[in-house]
Amino acid sequence: MNVEYVNPFLSSLVNVLGTMANTTIVPGQPRLKKDEQARGEVSGLIGMIGPTTKGSFSVTFEESLALEIMSRMLGERPDSINEEVTDMVGEITNMVTGGAKRILGEKGHEFSMATPVVVSGKGHTITHKTTGAKILMPFDSDFGKVFIEVSFDE
Amino acid sequence: MNVEYVNPFLSSLVNVLGTMANTTIVPGQPRLKKDEQARGEVSGLIGMIGPTTKGSFSVTFEESLALEIMSRMLGERPDSINEEVTDMVGEITNMVTGGAKRILGEKGHEFSMATPVVVSGKGHTITHKTTGAKILMPFDSDFGKVFIEVSFDE
Repeated sequence: MNVEYVNPFLSSLVNVLGTMANTTIVPGQPRLKKDEQARGEVSGLIGMIGPTTKGSFSVTFEESLALEIMSRMLGERPDSINEEVTDMVGEITNMVTGGAKRILGEKGHEFSMATPVVVSGKGHTITHKTTGAKILMPFDSDFGKVFIEVSFDE
Repeated sequence: MNVEYVNPFLSSLVNVLGTMANTTIVPGQPRLKKDEQARGEVSGLIGMIGPTTKGSFSVTFEESLALEIMSRMLGERPDSINEEVTDMVGEITNMVTGGAKRILGEKGHEFSMATPVVVSGKGHTITHKTTGAKILMPFDSDFGKVFIEVSFDE
């Protein structure tokens, strides 16, 4: 997998958080995920199936950032990660993947999206079980970190 | 969603753990998941896309059971959940979904599977963000609990 597949997810996340939550995030260095683990408190995951490949995407938020986005999108700030926050993370997962799907589709890489699944739990980690490279992209913000990971079968 | 969609996952999990790991699990009562949360230390998740619907499946193991299965399948027992255990959980997720896919395909319900994603972290919970009912099925064993959850868009 090359960066052509990853950049649409990156720009889609920046765009979704900027427009929906007025939140600026700063991309760090994308890297191949080996031992490194992205830890966070709430993650959205989604499966993707195309005619020639399949894969998965995840976005993992630190709690502080998830709660700040919740506050900015919906005007209320829960004390911890509740069902409204997981709903929001599921929606963000759908929007980011949908944005990437549109960009990749224009380049001839079509895929269909499954439904999102949201994981919550302190410091959980995620491993994409594909045969291809696992790309990890960290982002920083004033309120905490967010990570995306994307991988497709070779 | 009705029980016709859930039973193939149930029987496939019983079959996979019985044949691959010589481990007997006892199904509890399937139920609609509302507030209830399945908590475990390692989960496999996979997205599914059919011509008329899409959804997701997850299987969540308590650590004690995951390590026992690891020991029985591979003859070695790690002290905690490591990459070999998450690989095994990814494989089990693939095998269970593949078994259910075969059974459902024979009944005319075709779907394609994405790639599995494995989550690890103490007491994490999973929420399937679909428009349909979320079915939770608990299983008990001599070594700990395992839960499956399956849901499709309506």
